[in-house]
Amino acid sequence: KWKSHVESQELYLKHYQLVCSASIVILMQLGFTFLEVGSVRVQFTKSILMKNMVDMILSALMYFVIGFGFAFGDGSASGGFIGSTNFFLISETNISDIHHSSAGWVYHWSYCATAATIVAGAIAERTQLVAYGVYSIIGATFLYPVITHWIWSETGWASVYNPNSLIAPVLDDAGGIAVHTCAGMCSLVACFFVGPRQHRLDRKGKFVKDLPKQNQSFIVFGMFVLWFSWYAFNAGPAILAAGEDEALMGNIAVYTTVCAAASGASYLFISVASRKKLPEPGDLCNGILAGLVCSTSGCSVIQPYYGIVIGSFGGPIVIIVSKLLRKFKIDDVVDAVAVHLGCGVWSALSAPFFANTVPNTNENATFKYKSCGIFTGCSEGWKYLGSNVLLTLLTMMYVTAIITPTCFLLRQCKILRIKVESERHGVDIVEFEGPAYNHDLKSRKSKLFNDT
Amino acid sequence: KWKSHVESQELYLKHYQLVCSASIVILMQLGFTFLEVGSVRVQFTKSILMKNMVDMILSALMYFVIGFGFAFGDGSASGGFIGSTNFFLISETNISDIHHSSAGWVYHWSYCATAATIVAGAIAERTQLVAYGVYSIIGATFLYPVITHWIWSETGWASVYNPNSLIAPVLDDAGGIAVHTCAGMCSLVACFFVGPRQHRLDRKGKFVKDLPKQNQSFIVFGMFVLWFSWYAFNAGPAILAAGEDEALMGNIAVYTTVCAAASGASYLFISVASRKKLPEPGDLCNGILAGLVCSTSGCSVIQPYYGIVIGSFGGPIVIIVSKLLRKFKIDDVVDAVAVHLGCGVWSALSAPFFANTVPNTNENATFKYKSCGIFTGCSEGWKYLGSNVLLTLLTMMYVTAIITPTCFLLRQCKILRIKVESERHGVDIVEFEGPAYNHDLKSRKSKLFNDT
Amino acid sequence: KWKSHVESQELYLKHYQLVCSASIVILMQLGFTFLEVGSVRVQFTKSILMKNMVDMILSALMYFVIGFGFAFGDGSASGGFIGSTNFFLISETNISDIHHSSAGWVYHWSYCATAATIVAGAIAERTQLVAYGVYSIIGATFLYPVITHWIWSETGWASVYNPNSLIAPVLDDAGGIAVHTCAGMCSLVACFFVGPRQHRLDRKGKFVKDLPKQNQSFIVFGMFVLWFSWYAFNAGPAILAAGEDEALMGNIAVYTTVCAAASGASYLFISVASRKKLPEPGDLCNGILAGLVCSTSGCSVIQPYYGIVIGSFGGPIVIIVSKLLRKFKIDDVVDAVAVHLGCGVWSALSAPFFANTVPNTNENATFKYKSCGIFTGCSEGWKYLGSNVLLTLLTMMYVTAIITPTCFLLRQCKILRIKVESERHGVDIVEFEGPAYNHDLKSRKSKLFNDT
Repeated sequence: KWKSHVESQELYLKHYQLVCSASIVILMQLGFTFLEVGSVRVQFTKSILMKNMVDMILSALMYFVIGFGFAFGDGSASGGFIGSTNFFLISETNISDIHHSSAGWVYHWSYCATAATIVAGAIAERTQLVAYGVYSIIGATFLYPVITHWIWSETGWASVYNPNSLIAPVLDDAGGIAVHTCAGMCSLVACFFVGPRQHRLDRKGKFVKDLPKQNQSFIVFGMFVLWFSWYAFNAGPAILAAGEDEALMGNIAVYTTVCAAASGASYLFISVASRKKLPEPGDLCNGILAGLVCSTSGCSVIQPYYGIVIGSFGGPIVIIVSKLLRKFKIDDVVDAVAVHLGCGVWSALSAPFFANTVPNTNENATFKYKSCGIFTGCSEGWKYLGSNVLLTLLTMMYVTAIITPTCFLLRQCKILRIKVESERHGVDIVEFEGPAYNHDLKSRKSKLFNDT
Repeated sequence: KWKSHVESQELYLKHYQLVCSASIVILMQLGFTFLEVGSVRVQFTKSILMKNMVDMILSALMYFVIGFGFAFGDGSASGGFIGSTNFFLISETNISDIHHSSAGWVYHWSYCATAATIVAGAIAERTQLVAYGVYSIIGATFLYPVITHWIWSETGWASVYNPNSLIAPVLDDAGGIAVHTCAGMCSLVACFFVGPRQHRLDRKGKFVKDLPKQNQSFIVFGMFVLWFSWYAFNAGPAILAAGEDEALMGNIAVYTTVCAAASGASYLFISVASRKKLPEPGDLCNGILAGLVCSTSGCSVIQPYYGIVIGSFGGPIVIIVSKLLRKFKIDDVVDAVAVHLGCGVWSALSAPFFANTVPNTNENATFKYKSCGIFTGCSEGWKYLGSNVLLTLLTMMYVTAIITPTCFLLRQCKILRIKVESERHGVDIVEFEGPAYNHDLKSRKSKLFNDT
Repeated sequence: KWKSHVESQELYLKHYQLVCSASIVILMQLGFTFLEVGSVRVQFTKSILMKNMVDMILSALMYFVIGFGFAFGDGSASGGFIGSTNFFLISETNISDIHHSSAGWVYHWSYCATAATIVAGAIAERTQLVAYGVYSIIGATFLYPVITHWIWSETGWASVYNPNSLIAPVLDDAGGIAVHTCAGMCSLVACFFVGPRQHRLDRKGKFVKDLPKQNQSFIVFGMFVLWFSWYAFNAGPAILAAGEDEALMGNIAVYTTVCAAASGASYLFISVASRKKLPEPGDLCNGILAGLVCSTSGCSVIQPYYGIVIGSFGGPIVIIVSKLLRKFKIDDVVDAVAVHLGCGVWSALSAPFFANTVPNTNENATFKYKSCGIFTGCSEGWKYLGSNVLLTLLTMMYVTAIITPTCFLLRQCKILRIKVESERHGVDIVEFEGPAYNHDLKSRKSKLFNDT
């Protein structure tokens, strides 16, 4: 009886810690909103604010009603492709299995909402709210849930929790593939179909360097919120391991910090060396966020000092991908593709090189390791790298396969892009009730609405 | 000895978790400040900033010196109406009783400060700082403490912790009555006495639709901070139950999320359907916050899927109450009455319908259940509903009985409303040292003060 | 086996809680950025944003590579002056010793980054980014680490964790000396060498009252973030004591709150009494932050009600120190010297008077007490006060000894102060790509950069 008392305490604490982490990840929405508002032109402020709220509302409802069932319901009927039970959290029976519990729902929804919101920034200033709503719904039902089913559910075909996984289990601790590659790829496809903003090209059809971002301070505030929340974002594996690996939480936190700092430093260095000028604060934020994304896939199994290596690739990746997009005239307002796709892929591909060799806790598992590092002397490393490569590619292909027809359909129905009028004068002016800010010291009444 | 070791660990963790939650609830002050600054006209910025700081300072001191004693001191002398021991936290002796411990103080003060700050927004732009200070002091000594004594203290006459409660124990997990109905009612009475802002009526004496809000982004930032903090706000019952109900924390978090999303969705739907136009971002925030308020009273005993039902009332309630206030020419700057009173009451009244049947943990209690749901098949449900109805009404009456003479006195002493002059030109200009913002790129010196 | 299971759970929880606290302290960077951006003139915004990011990047890298080794590595070779092992966290072997673990690293880095960032505000608007980078590097290797080695490491010559400490152990729970006195002193010396801002003096060579702060709201937002984070900042001793003192966490939180409120109240009172006018919101923030700094040194051993006494000194200290600086023509943009040095010293000196008598947990320790309060009847109190006085003085001297030649060298190399040109027109205009804000509703293109 005493033992069961202690065990239920431990289970409670696990739930408590998951919910704490989840709520901090939910605060990332504040960070992204800061970042995105800061990055758009001032006459498009209300539209981006609406997007971020609608994204939360729709992703919560869809993930509650359908998404979580797709993600962690029993997927054996579909061969580990998609779950088909536990919709509405109704069949929650075994709470000691975190992935089927309500705490698990909050935790995964917080990730899912993050994945959904990243796309908002990329296609800002020119996309209709309805179209964005459609992305949120699809993201919270068909994208994030299906990919997480593959790699994190008990019946997923590539999952570390499935002892009969078809391939060596994928190493994706905190969603380098499931969140960042997925959201980044979605942003890329959406950006391609939505097209660049009206004033993004000059008369010769070349990209202008940048459209005016409204508020550099907001971008930095957002980055600091995200940096803080990232510790919770990466903490999942440590919470689940709990007493089995006491130092894991600290290691993850140090690794996360070192990656962020190394990436920021490399961004700053390259930027100053190539431009002979300091980067804009908002751009350095992307350099730091890049490092945080770099840390995701292998956060629980990589020694902190390797963070210097892995993180320092963040800066150059953001710079190069961003230039490539510019070359192909893809207009990504917040560089979401560079940060999340670029570094998400790097995170997934680099992790199997530097990972510690961690035996699979399930002794009946077909594959012996949970992670297996090529550079750290694990002989079967390449097999595990193969899984990460495969899943990264599959995620990119799957997202493209879902988002392409969606964009096409939205475009055909003329609900993808806002009216030319709105784009010329600003959505806030044309479709809302005027500018988002009113700093006129003399304005005593609202001029627009004197009717009751 | 080993057992006592484990027990003191558990007690420590309970204190730790309460303090964590409390500190996150204290962060709500940031959220409310964002929201309120965003909602006022720019020339009233400093005055609202001061209010939010003075509120924190005074409520902390008063709740420390007097309030906590009124709330959780022994109230048997007064028949469970008000406590009269443990002022200054001096008689803290039994720390295993959370409600008498310092952790309990922080936790309840965080609630108390929230209740106090809500009023600030409603009566913004026209109330004197002194008057606001008086509200804070009264709120932190006579309002929140007394009501919490009734429903949450061990000697409270309607408290679930009092086995000899006079009526079936009130179901008010996270303050739908004690915080939101109380603060909302206080806002309503104060708004009535303070009267509308100078420019709120047009020449025909009709309300203009709205005075210009200074910053829509701030309102949304504030809403996201509040959404985050709300998980801590509602977490109390799960922390106190700890190992006895491992899944409770997760259930509360899912329920909170679903309520917020359902309310936001209903607000958005009604708004678009009736206006053929998107709502302002700041207004949608109220739709979301309404859902969060809806979740409070029954958060620990209602199944998450009922959140869709209960939450979806949030949107219409805010819209209707807001229209009613307009009709009665009551000027509530941030719609605090609609959000907190409207949805606080709805939360308190709806909870006894949807609640699970939870037996009272105290076996000697006169009443058998902690909560008892009418729709979920608990035969004595109406008795429990009766308690919630009674306490909601009593809270509204008690607040009115305290605040009405206060307002009257303040008005007689001419310290309720700011000078006509200040209202015309803005408090920041007349009573402070000029506008809150200085974005003039050329301003090298402060023009106003060249003296040392 | 069962016992070891419970023990490893407890150790895990200790790591978890340290990392949680650390991440919340890292959020202080958001608070300081808010505060500092709000306090500078608008044409210096980007420069302060860059400073806050560079500070994080450099302090993380330096503290990882060198600083932590200096702080908590074995210092017996140097007689407890400086550690010389555990660089790169490579020799982390004994995770149950928190101070050598990765969780300890994150916790102490979060403090270290705070100490580094405080200086940024004081010397804002006129210092080169390179110079600031040098301060960050020195702060994260030679200042904070060395002082923490003295007072918190196992081999430190004045440390409570060293049973053979040379003097009675210093009482500095949450860095009144190590963080605030250190950072405040560093600010003072740096301010002295950098000199006042160009427009800070009028034609007669007198200080103008103040240069225009850009955003009072940002300052208040920052203060609320800091207030929230401060609970985590002060929580360290309670986390380390855990089950040994269950109520400690709550006591610290109440004490922190009461100090903040008392200091805010005293600031407000003095300000209104002397000026017959309300203070600016941003100034009241300093009054509140002063109280939070006052709470640091003795937070774990002082009864909450003494917070009213200790905290109420915060207001006058800030006002007096700030006036003194003005008199000596030292230009401190955010009053960092007044808040952090003034109240840090007060915190360190007042704590030994009010502290509870706490026996040293290490029974072999030369000195019997961990803390020993003069006013609370501990006979050896003066000896313990002596230690705090000595360490406060030594910290101030040591910081001066390190920072003076640094400043001198930076000035000789002409990398201390920005160009006159940049100062006249604003760094953002001259050295970055234009102002940090673009609120022009008509701006469709960035005028400055039409090249690809």
